[in-house]
Amino acid sequence: MPSLLLLAGDGIGPEVMAATERVIHFFNKRGAGFELQSGLVGGTAVDNEGAPISEATLAKAMAADAILFGAVGGPQYDGLSYDMRPEAGLLRLRKHFDLFANIRPAICYPALADSSSLKREVVEGLDIIILRELTGGVYFGEPKTIEELGNGQKRAIDTQVYDTYEIDRIGRAAFDLARTRRNHVTSMEKRNVMKTGVLWREVMEETHKDGYEDVTLDHMLADAGAMQLVRNPKQFDVIVCDNLFGDMLSDIAAQLTGSLGMLPSASLGAVDSTTGRRRALYEPVHGSAPDIAGKGIANPIAMIASFGMALQYSFGMVAEAKALDAAIAETLAEGLRTADIAAPGDEAVGTTEMTDAILGNLEMS
Amino acid sequence: MPSLLLLAGDGIGPEVMAATERVIHFFNKRGAGFELQSGLVGGTAVDNEGAPISEATLAKAMAADAILFGAVGGPQYDGLSYDMRPEAGLLRLRKHFDLFANIRPAICYPALADSSSLKREVVEGLDIIILRELTGGVYFGEPKTIEELGNGQKRAIDTQVYDTYEIDRIGRAAFDLARTRRNHVTSMEKRNVMKTGVLWREVMEETHKDGYEDVTLDHMLADAGAMQLVRNPKQFDVIVCDNLFGDMLSDIAAQLTGSLGMLPSASLGAVDSTTGRRRALYEPVHGSAPDIAGKGIANPIAMIASFGMALQYSFGMVAEAKALDAAIAETLAEGLRTADIAAPGDEAVGTTEMTDAILGNLEMS
Ligand SMILES: CC(C)[C@H](C(=O)O)[C@@H](O)C(=O)O
Ligand SMILES: CC(C)[C@H](C(=O)O)[C@@H](O)C(=O)O
Repeated sequence: MPSLLLLAGDGIGPEVMAATERVIHFFNKRGAGFELQSGLVGGTAVDNEGAPISEATLAKAMAADAILFGAVGGPQYDGLSYDMRPEAGLLRLRKHFDLFANIRPAICYPALADSSSLKREVVEGLDIIILRELTGGVYFGEPKTIEELGNGQKRAIDTQVYDTYEIDRIGRAAFDLARTRRNHVTSMEKRNVMKTGVLWREVMEETHKDGYEDVTLDHMLADAGAMQLVRNPKQFDVIVCDNLFGDMLSDIAAQLTGSLGMLPSASLGAVDSTTGRRRALYEPVHGSAPDIAGKGIANPIAMIASFGMALQYSFGMVAEAKALDAAIAETLAEGLRTADIAAPGDEAVGTTEMTDAILGNLEMS
Repeated sequence: MPSLLLLAGDGIGPEVMAATERVIHFFNKRGAGFELQSGLVGGTAVDNEGAPISEATLAKAMAADAILFGAVGGPQYDGLSYDMRPEAGLLRLRKHFDLFANIRPAICYPALADSSSLKREVVEGLDIIILRELTGGVYFGEPKTIEELGNGQKRAIDTQVYDTYEIDRIGRAAFDLARTRRNHVTSMEKRNVMKTGVLWREVMEETHKDGYEDVTLDHMLADAGAMQLVRNPKQFDVIVCDNLFGDMLSDIAAQLTGSLGMLPSASLGAVDSTTGRRRALYEPVHGSAPDIAGKGIANPIAMIASFGMALQYSFGMVAEAKALDAAIAETLAEGLRTADIAAPGDEAVGTTEMTDAILGNLEMS
């Protein structure tokens, strides 16, 4: 039986996860047979279990086929120490399961093109993916310290480290992904100031030559790339970059679509050569939105669409994933809007109504 | 006599610098008395002097009151070694003269609001500054290496280092700048994943308490900040951030205005307590644009406006700086457009005609 671990987390996490459970149950009624477990993560886990993720929860994650992750963080946790901050739970999961390939689609639904701060013609029909390296770079490199220098001064250090194999495997993931799309990869780095950028470009070139020459590979400096993303995002297909650039670039790409509350993501590990399985975590790109938590108004679409990515990438249920995406698009086309995507004058619906409507459209598919 | 070193560099650098010299001569005819020297930098310097900047040029820079810098780089230099790449000349100047405070205004001229990829109402009247720390962080930290690991693998390392004093001085620069504007500083970092981000925020708070409490200080995570910059840039006044985030965020901010060819920047050192002087380099935000080099069509405004910043920050010629800005705005309002800012159907003028028009408007001021 396929199994999922649900880690709802903080803020609006539990609300959007509850909405997604209803969608999972829909597929179970149709025989999918998902087994669900749940656990705590983030600030809620610190409050209840003394750490942003407990060993018991990690063990549950190990036993599950895939993890659905909500969101973590909130102002009440701002005072926690670095090791106890809610984000540490998420970072630990990424590293522990070696989820190096973070797929972040930026799709602009026609029904929502006007809610972007960009001109309609610049973003309408946008469909690009930021493929972010997720387990290396400055997020995890050592030393990562703050030392006292005496004289009242402190020195903080972060280290960005990349090995050939780390760049090679994310490069292959990018080329494989591009082959299912428009066959075009743009690699972004700062080779003019960073040695990791120099190696990044070198390995991308080598990997490209190793059986991927049918895919077009371009290079851009990350600063110029950020500009191009704002100027003319439709020029891209798959953008591949390191962990920190990916953090920035995927958030920018998400913002272009005007609907952060709609965007899912998948974080994948390597395919296990004996079991054929692949570790995976699915999470919305949005955060925990503490300001609207508990009000029943959060947009559940990004979380539901993250489950859709799980259907596709972890369970090979491609038809079901397509049906779910279509039900979401249909619901938007019908005019349903949660507050975050409502235009002035639109009537906004709550989390439950939005989920009802998606389930209704699923029923009919 | 006030003295300037002109480093035109590569690509369109020499063309926009020649245009700017005409503007300098205009002020000299009115008695400003600028003494001009010139030197090579970037790929041109590698070709002619064997290094991206020579010791002789550094000595000239030392003797000058301020440096005007064009742009560096081009495809013919892509094969150069890391130490010989054109950018190394610029990075050496920044570090050598400790030009830690990089002021990058992003201003959206009303006449050009439609050339942005963002909606007019989002960017019209935009006037913000990205204050980027320019001599620290991952640009200069050691180790910065690529090592062979044996087994065909390489490991690349970059190091981001910040000391208290470096954050403190850029913080003070931000608060001082905000006081001349809308009194609002937003500090951006990634304290949730970087120790330098933790120290950055801590020192910003301390410096703020040390006599700057009349200025509003906000904090944002850099990824969320990048989003907010695209969503609603007018919410900001002065954004202060580290070298690498500043590189990305200032390019995004520049792109919002729809007119990269218009944006100047200033890189300032500390005020020398005995001479009262401050080392300074002024450069356009745009690059060397090799694709249009030598065609006489480059937009000279960013370079001319960079000289305008020199008038203001290095020479205290505030009235002259204002007159120059007004002449540029007037020229745009009259409808003159170089190719980069021409709307479909507009007739584009060349570098010389644009400069003529600006000089014409200056004459009348
Ligand atoms: C929560 C935080 C640690 C995380 C990151 O920086 O990776 C988030 O911004 C993201 O993009 O998933
Ligand atoms: C040319 C390059 C080294 C430089 C940088 O990265 O700082 C440029 O992008 C800039 O922003 O001035």
